[in-house]
Amino acid sequence: MLIVMDLNAPREDIEKIKLKIKQLNCTPHEIPGASKLAIGITGPTHNLKQEDFSLMPSVEDVVRVTKKYKLVSRMMKSEDTIIDFGNKSIGGNRLQIIAGPCSVESRDQIFEIAEILKNMGINFLRAGAYKPRSSPYSFQGLKEEGLKYLEEVKKEFDLKIVTELLNQHTVDAVAAVADIIQIGARNMQNFTLLEEAGKTQKPVLLKRGMSATVEDLLLSAEYIISQNDYNIILCERGIRTFETATRNTLDLNAVPVLKKETHLPVFVDPSHGVGIWDKIPPMALASIAAGADGLMIEVHQRPGEALSDGYQALDPKRFKSLLEKIKELAPIVGKELV
Amino acid sequence: MLIVMDLNAPREDIEKIKLKIKQLNCTPHEIPGASKLAIGITGPTHNLKQEDFSLMPSVEDVVRVTKKYKLVSRMMKSEDTIIDFGNKSIGGNRLQIIAGPCSVESRDQIFEIAEILKNMGINFLRAGAYKPRSSPYSFQGLKEEGLKYLEEVKKEFDLKIVTELLNQHTVDAVAAVADIIQIGARNMQNFTLLEEAGKTQKPVLLKRGMSATVEDLLLSAEYIISQNDYNIILCERGIRTFETATRNTLDLNAVPVLKKETHLPVFVDPSHGVGIWDKIPPMALASIAAGADGLMIEVHQRPGEALSDGYQALDPKRFKSLLEKIKELAPIVGKELV
Amino acid sequence: MLIVMDLNAPREDIEKIKLKIKQLNCTPHEIPGASKLAIGITGPTHNLKQEDFSLMPSVEDVVRVTKKYKLVSRMMKSEDTIIDFGNKSIGGNRLQIIAGPCSVESRDQIFEIAEILKNMGINFLRAGAYKPRSSPYSFQGLKEEGLKYLEEVKKEFDLKIVTELLNQHTVDAVAAVADIIQIGARNMQNFTLLEEAGKTQKPVLLKRGMSATVEDLLLSAEYIISQNDYNIILCERGIRTFETATRNTLDLNAVPVLKKETHLPVFVDPSHGVGIWDKIPPMALASIAAGADGLMIEVHQRPGEALSDGYQALDPKRFKSLLEKIKELAPIVGKELV
Amino acid sequence: MLIVMDLNAPREDIEKIKLKIKQLNCTPHEIPGASKLAIGITGPTHNLKQEDFSLMPSVEDVVRVTKKYKLVSRMMKSEDTIIDFGNKSIGGNRLQIIAGPCSVESRDQIFEIAEILKNMGINFLRAGAYKPRSSPYSFQGLKEEGLKYLEEVKKEFDLKIVTELLNQHTVDAVAAVADIIQIGARNMQNFTLLEEAGKTQKPVLLKRGMSATVEDLLLSAEYIISQNDYNIILCERGIRTFETATRNTLDLNAVPVLKKETHLPVFVDPSHGVGIWDKIPPMALASIAAGADGLMIEVHQRPGEALSDGYQALDPKRFKSLLEKIKELAPIVGKELV
Repeated sequence: MLIVMDLNAPREDIEKIKLKIKQLNCTPHEIPGASKLAIGITGPTHNLKQEDFSLMPSVEDVVRVTKKYKLVSRMMKSEDTIIDFGNKSIGGNRLQIIAGPCSVESRDQIFEIAEILKNMGINFLRAGAYKPRSSPYSFQGLKEEGLKYLEEVKKEFDLKIVTELLNQHTVDAVAAVADIIQIGARNMQNFTLLEEAGKTQKPVLLKRGMSATVEDLLLSAEYIISQNDYNIILCERGIRTFETATRNTLDLNAVPVLKKETHLPVFVDPSHGVGIWDKIPPMALASIAAGADGLMIEVHQRPGEALSDGYQALDPKRFKSLLEKIKELAPIVGKELV
Repeated sequence: MLIVMDLNAPREDIEKIKLKIKQLNCTPHEIPGASKLAIGITGPTHNLKQEDFSLMPSVEDVVRVTKKYKLVSRMMKSEDTIIDFGNKSIGGNRLQIIAGPCSVESRDQIFEIAEILKNMGINFLRAGAYKPRSSPYSFQGLKEEGLKYLEEVKKEFDLKIVTELLNQHTVDAVAAVADIIQIGARNMQNFTLLEEAGKTQKPVLLKRGMSATVEDLLLSAEYIISQNDYNIILCERGIRTFETATRNTLDLNAVPVLKKETHLPVFVDPSHGVGIWDKIPPMALASIAAGADGLMIEVHQRPGEALSDGYQALDPKRFKSLLEKIKELAPIVGKELV
Repeated sequence: MLIVMDLNAPREDIEKIKLKIKQLNCTPHEIPGASKLAIGITGPTHNLKQEDFSLMPSVEDVVRVTKKYKLVSRMMKSEDTIIDFGNKSIGGNRLQIIAGPCSVESRDQIFEIAEILKNMGINFLRAGAYKPRSSPYSFQGLKEEGLKYLEEVKKEFDLKIVTELLNQHTVDAVAAVADIIQIGARNMQNFTLLEEAGKTQKPVLLKRGMSATVEDLLLSAEYIISQNDYNIILCERGIRTFETATRNTLDLNAVPVLKKETHLPVFVDPSHGVGIWDKIPPMALASIAAGADGLMIEVHQRPGEALSDGYQALDPKRFKSLLEKIKELAPIVGKELV
Repeated sequence: MLIVMDLNAPREDIEKIKLKIKQLNCTPHEIPGASKLAIGITGPTHNLKQEDFSLMPSVEDVVRVTKKYKLVSRMMKSEDTIIDFGNKSIGGNRLQIIAGPCSVESRDQIFEIAEILKNMGINFLRAGAYKPRSSPYSFQGLKEEGLKYLEEVKKEFDLKIVTELLNQHTVDAVAAVADIIQIGARNMQNFTLLEEAGKTQKPVLLKRGMSATVEDLLLSAEYIISQNDYNIILCERGIRTFETATRNTLDLNAVPVLKKETHLPVFVDPSHGVGIWDKIPPMALASIAAGADGLMIEVHQRPGEALSDGYQALDPKRFKSLLEKIKELAPIVGKELV
C-alpha cells in the first residue's frame, strides 16, 4: 500500500502516519521523490483498509500496490531514480558506461587500463577482486590484494569503482572500496547477501540470474530496497536457453519491460550476454536503442592475455570506436553520453 | 567444397568443372557473385580431393567448407546477398520495413491499411491469408478470398506482398500473389515445404522456429538454397524460454551471429518477439542497432479490433513515429532507410 | 460443450440433437464410450446455452468444457481411449512397446531386426522410410523402397507397422502400409499434415515438438480428432532446454499431466529423449513408472553400423533384458505387458 | 591427476607421495576406498608428469583426470560413496526417503508429523527453519526457534534431521542440529557457502540449481569435496524450462547421467520438481526406476493449512501408499527400502 502526500506536508503529519502504520504491525518507508512525498507500506498489508489513512491530514491518495514487488515498482514511485554521483549521476537521461577488465590481475594491469579508460572519459571502472568461478580450481581473483589496488587506482584517477561482493565475510572490505557494490548473477537469490549489501547504504548493481524471470529480479531488488537502500541498478546479462551459438541469450526484451515496471536504472552487460568479443559492439548499441540507462563492458588492454574471460573483452581501440557510436546513438533515444 | 574461379573464366572451363563434379557423384552449384565466380559442391564431398580440381584451367582456389551448412555460408559466398526488387532491393546497406496486419480480415481492412502504409513510404505489405493457429477452433484466415484481396491491393498500390505459405496444396496459389513467400516459425523444419518454396524460385522469408538454434535455421535455409533459390531472408522472431513477461524472448544475439555466418539478409520481427505493442518500438530500434537488414512489423489501423494478435500491433501513428527514429538511427550502423 | 446421454438413447433422439447443433452453426461429434453416449460440440459454442439442450429427450447432462482443447479432454470423455488392434490393443491397462530401427536401411536389415523383435513378443515395428533431417545432405531414408520393404516385413511377421508421415504428397502411400501413422516432433504444428493424417482414419502417433507445451500438444491432437479420428497416441520425446549432457530433456512430468488432462494413450520415446544408449533402459523404466501406456524404442541389430542415430539404439540383447524388467515393473503401476 | 596405490601401502610411502605433490605446488587428497588406496591431486596439475610418480614405491597407476570436476568423478573413485549413518546408511543398494514438511511451523506441527513419519519407518526428517523466499514479504521460517524444535524432535523420535543452511551467519547453529546440511537450489553457486558447509565435515545434500547443468552441479559439489568432505548427496529438483503446466521440469535424465559420472549418491525431490501433489507419486516412482538412491518428499499432516508450499505436499495417507509401492519397486532396480 502507498500513501501519497503533499510535498510540503508537515513532518508532524508524516510521523503520525508512520506511527499508525507501525501500530498496525506494518513497516513504513519514506520514498524519495521530487514532486510528491510518498510513504510505502510493507508487511501484512492485507489487514489495512484505505479508510484507515485516507482522511488523515496531508494525505492526497491511498493506493493498493497489486504487484508482488512493492518499493521497486513504478506504482510506488513514478519518477526515475537517479543515483547521485555529482556530475557522474546514473539514471534519467544520462548514459553511463562501466568499463574495465573481468578481474584485477596485478597493480600494473589495473593502473594501465584505468588510465586508458579515464582518458576516454569513462567514469566507472569495473574489476573483480573476488571472482565467483564454477570450478574451485579456476583463478579466484587477487582478493584483498585486488581490493588494495582498486583503492589506489581510484585515488590516482578519480574513478568510481564497481566491484563484486561474493560473501558476507567481505562486506566491510568491499564496501570500503566500492562506489557501487556488484551482486553477480549466481548470487541474485542469495537473499542474505542482498540484505547485507543494502545495509551498507551503498549503491548496488544487481545482475539478473541466469534463470531468473524479470519478476524474480525485481523481487531480489526488493530485498535490497527494503533495507532502505534506494540506489539500485538492475543489470541484464543474458539468460540460459537452448542456444549454444552464444555464451548466454541477452534478453533485451527485459529492458523495456523493466523500464515500465520499475523506477530503478537498467543497465545491460553485453560482454557476458553474448560472450564473443566481435558481437559485443552491435549488442551494446542494441542495448542503448532498447532503452538501457547504461552499459557494463569488459575492456582489457590485451584481451589475449587476460586471466579470465579474455574472449569477451574488447581492446581499447575497439571500445573507443564503440563509445563514439554510442555518443551518436544516444540523442535518438533521448539520452546523452557525456 | 568450393571452387573459386576467375570472374572471366570461359564457359567451357566452368562446364568442364561441373561435369567432373557430377562424375564424382556430387552436385555443382554456380554461386552468384560480383567479384569472383564460385562453384559450390554438395553431396558426398568427403570423397573429393582438392587436387582433383586445383590444377584445372581458370581455378584460383579450392576450399573445404567445414560448416554443416554449405551454400548459405559466408565461406561459400563472402559478399552480402542482395535481393533485387528494382529500387526496393533488400540487403546490403538498404533497410526495408515489411509492415501490415497479422491477417487479411476483409477487402476494406486491407485496402485501408495498405494505403496508409504506402503513404508512409512502405514498400512491402505483410498480411496472412492462411493463418497457422495452435487451436483448430481459432480464426484460420480468409484463405483464397484473402489471396484475392492481396492481389487487388498489390495492383492498386504497387506494393510488394509478403504472405505465408502453410502447406503444399497452396504453393501455386500463394506463389502467384506473393513477392516474398513467408515460411512461419512452426514450419521451419517442414522440409518438404522448404523445398517446394525453393522450387518456386521466389524470394523466401524464413522465420526461426521457437526452439531452433541458429545452426538449425541455417540448415533449413540450406534446404531452400539447394533448390537453387538464393533469395532468402532469415527472420529472428523470438525463441521460447522460461521468461513469461513477454510472449517470446527476442534473441537479438542471433543478428550479429547470422551476419557473420551467412551472406543472406537478416530481418527481425519484434512484434512476435516481444508480443506487447508498447515494447515493440524500442525492440525495433534495438534490432536495427544490432545490425538487422530490416524489420517485419505488425501494423493495424485499429489494433483493438484486430481478429488476431491485436495486442502486438502498432497503430499507424506510433508506427510512423518509429519509422522516423529508424531513419535517424540507420546511418549510425552504416545503413539507410529510403 | 458436451451433451451426455443415456447409452441406450434412441437414434432418433441423437439425430435431433445433432440437427439442433448444426442449426446453431456448430459441429456435433459423437464420442465413443462404454458407459455413456456423449456428443461433443465444437465451433462458436459461446452462442449456445445449456438450456438449449438440457430438456431434450435422453439428455442427462450438459457440460461446458473450459479447456482450450475440447474433444481430447477428459471433460469430454472420461474413460481411457483404447485403440483396438484385436489382441494387441493400445491403452487401458495394457502396455505396448513399439520397437525397431531409426530407419529402414535395406531389405535384409529390416527383415533381420523384425524377426528378432517378433521372437521377443513385440507387436509393433517402427522404422522410418522418410526421414526428416536437419541437413539436406544427411541420409533422407529409402523412401518408396523403404515402404515396400515395410509392407513385405509386415506380412511375413504379422507385425503392426509404425512409420512416419513427412508430407502431403505421401499420405496415401504411407497410409497404405502403416498401421499407425507417426507425426514427428518437427511436424507437430504442421496443421495441414495433422488434418490429412486424421482424414485417413488410421491411428496416429503424435510426437511432442521440441518446444511444445503440453497444451500445444493437446491442441495439435485436437486438429486430428476434429477429423473424427479418435485413435491418437501422444508421445513425449524430450524437450529442448539448456542442458547439453543429454540430447534432449525427457519431460516425464508430462506423463501424469497428460494422463489427467486427456483420455488418449500416452507413450514415451526415451531413445530421442536422452539420446545415449546406456541411459535408455533406466529412462524406459522411469517412463512406465510415471504412468506411460507404452514406449517407442530404437533397437538395431548392430547399432554401430546404423545409418542414423545409432548411438541411441539398443542392441537386441540389452533390449531383451529391458523387456524383462518392464514385465516385472508393470503390475506395480496396474499394467501388464503381454 | 590420480595416483592409485596398493591398499596395504605403508604410511611412509603414502606420505612421501603427498610430500612430493606439495613440493610441486599441488594439493593431495586421500580418497576413501574399499579395494584401493588413491591419492587425488588438484591444483596446477598441468605441470605434473606421470613419470614424476609412476616409479615411486607402492604406486600401481597414475591417471590423468580429464573432466573439469575431479574428486567427485568416478575416474577418481569408482566405488559408490556410502554415507554412514549406522543402520540408516545412504547410497549403495539402500534406498532412503527424506520426508517432512516444507518448513517448521510450530512445535506441535513438527512433533505431530515427526511421529507419523517415524511410525511409517522413515529415518530422515526434513523441515526448514530458515526459508529462502523470492519475496522479502513471504514467511521466512521460524529461524532459531525452528532449529530448537528440530533439536527436540530429533531427540524425541531418534530421527536424522535434514535442514537448509541459508547463510554464513548460521553455519554453526544449523550444523549443531542438522545430520545432513541442505544447500538449496538458489545457493548452488554460492561458493562461499559451499565451502563453509564442507568445513563442518557434516553430510551435505546439494540441490541442483534451476538453470544448472549437470556439470555445474558436479563442479559445485567439488567445492564441498575439496574441503575434504566426501559425504555429499546430489539432489535433482527440476530445472526451469518453457513448460508452465508444472512448477519445474524434473530432469530425470540427470539421474543416470550423474550415476555414471560420479560416485556420490543421487536423490530426487519430486515435490519441487513437479509442484502439484497428485503428480508426485508417479514421479517419485519414476525417480526410483531411473536409478535414484533416494527421495526427498514434502509430507504435511494437513497440506491445506501449510504455511508454505502446501499444494506440493502429500498427506500421510497418500505418502504411506507411495512408500508401499516404492518397496515393491526397489528390487526391480536392485535396491531395497528397509
